[in-house]
Amino acid sequence: MKKLIGIDLGGTTIKFAILTENGEVQQKWSIETDISNNGRNIVPNIIESIKYHLEIYGLSREDIIGIGMGSPGSVDLENGTVIGAYNLNWESLQPVKEQIENGTGIPFFIDNDANVASLGEQWIGAGKGSNNVVFVTLGTGVGGGIIAEGKLVHGVGAAGEIGHINVDPNGYTCTCGNIGCLETVASATGIVRLARDMSEQYAGESKLKYLIDDGQQVTAKIVMDQAKENDPLAIKVLDKFNFYLGLACGNIANVLHPETIVLGGGVSAAGQILINGVDHYFQKYTFPQIRNSTKIKFAELGNDAGIIGAASLVKRQS
Amino acid sequence: MKKLIGIDLGGTTIKFAILTENGEVQQKWSIETDISNNGRNIVPNIIESIKYHLEIYGLSREDIIGIGMGSPGSVDLENGTVIGAYNLNWESLQPVKEQIENGTGIPFFIDNDANVASLGEQWIGAGKGSNNVVFVTLGTGVGGGIIAEGKLVHGVGAAGEIGHINVDPNGYTCTCGNIGCLETVASATGIVRLARDMSEQYAGESKLKYLIDDGQQVTAKIVMDQAKENDPLAIKVLDKFNFYLGLACGNIANVLHPETIVLGGGVSAAGQILINGVDHYFQKYTFPQIRNSTKIKFAELGNDAGIIGAASLVKRQS
Repeated sequence: MKKLIGIDLGGTTIKFAILTENGEVQQKWSIETDISNNGRNIVPNIIESIKYHLEIYGLSREDIIGIGMGSPGSVDLENGTVIGAYNLNWESLQPVKEQIENGTGIPFFIDNDANVASLGEQWIGAGKGSNNVVFVTLGTGVGGGIIAEGKLVHGVGAAGEIGHINVDPNGYTCTCGNIGCLETVASATGIVRLARDMSEQYAGESKLKYLIDDGQQVTAKIVMDQAKENDPLAIKVLDKFNFYLGLACGNIANVLHPETIVLGGGVSAAGQILINGVDHYFQKYTFPQIRNSTKIKFAELGNDAGIIGAASLVKRQS
Repeated sequence: MKKLIGIDLGGTTIKFAILTENGEVQQKWSIETDISNNGRNIVPNIIESIKYHLEIYGLSREDIIGIGMGSPGSVDLENGTVIGAYNLNWESLQPVKEQIENGTGIPFFIDNDANVASLGEQWIGAGKGSNNVVFVTLGTGVGGGIIAEGKLVHGVGAAGEIGHINVDPNGYTCTCGNIGCLETVASATGIVRLARDMSEQYAGESKLKYLIDDGQQVTAKIVMDQAKENDPLAIKVLDKFNFYLGLACGNIANVLHPETIVLGGGVSAAGQILINGVDHYFQKYTFPQIRNSTKIKFAELGNDAGIIGAASLVKRQS
């Protein structure tokens, strides 16, 4: 049985996997990302690591149908190039596909990292078996990917900018320059921003308020943990977060009517308390027919979504 | 050269067209919709009308590749059935495809009317040549259709409920039961609602306010016409409408990054004043990369969008 290779290229590590055609991960390894020298070593390191591991596992290039990779930056799917991946120091155009195909002799496919993770969840994760899946990552930023009628939606190129859905025209200024983007309130830093602002106006007893006023470092995890312990301010903060995320998910669903909206990323680790709250507002802002059929679920593949989704690019495009 | 037949089934009239494979309308006619007797005459009338006109135009059923139809109500694409089309008195399941194929001997395809109109605009109208088009109809209600990566998006079935995107969580109650749907402020009745509400709080001189206070019938067209004549209240109402519609279009674009957002329906007849205003807010609420590439345009096919889009179903599915 032939295999797939999936690569998740990040600013700190590059993750690799060898998978069956059904998406089962058989081998997994990772190397550090060497961003020195304008990131010039990255692609040669990837090629070398693939060759080395194929040898270790007794595989030849004929055993591999193709290599798929998720990359940060702006990806040109057709030409297989990447530009503007600043966390890799790739400021100029990188002919990744050409280099990797020349170096390995294996067909290569690429897409951006958020899209690739959503493909993973749709293939064998929380969106398995569904042709209409929306993936929302809640991490340092808020990103996502859209699969509609079985196709990954790129639009002109930047589809899936879920973090920049406007949820409050009178809200906070975003790094993109706009006001009120979802990312300003639903990312890890966004939750802390909400907590700090709401703390100033909060007069009652609250551990969270004490931590903030005391100048201690407050993270999204601390806010979520305090909410689970019924801290009254933390509950208010979480409710506001849920409102914004539920509104954004509701509006996406009104447009696309997906079977599943998958929440992933570090912030989603807060667990059931978060799904329940988001779903409350989701119900409130969706058209009845949609409300009764679209489900909000947690991502299931964790850090493997990238390598698995990357491998699925091969099956989609080859 | 073989032909297509397109049908636009409405509550008052049924429009028909015979088109070339390139979407050129060669013949056009219409009949009244007979909704008596639970709409039982509708399909027989359609069959009879097609047979009669094929004969008139000297065409046989072998000259026709297929018949496509846009229908109100809830359409089952695969089985070709319609249910819950209340303006046709079709409350129970109608086996439309089966009846029309049996009656004409020609392959038949069906989708809902808003989707079909967007296919028309994407095929040979304002979205021509683009694989990513969003169509928004501003009429008695607000509806729409989504084409992503060349595919019409149905999702679980109700995708394209653009009128129920939430644009104001503290807004007006919608017919769907939710609060703050786009339809409550951007439909023809929505604009009048805005005008009445804003008139109550408006103290200055205004013809529009005079008409409202005088108890005269005020329509969306009157509001738009007054705005064009620089009536200060009408300009405020139009600006509010533009804000809501620009916000909704912006959020759709942040998710799907279409090349074109096509505005159609009666309200869009207001013309350039409307595009400029909507675009102002659209720019404000979209991610920079999207703002610079997605264009807002008026529909080009007018009432023919339905018959043309319906005919395109044949090309898409046969």
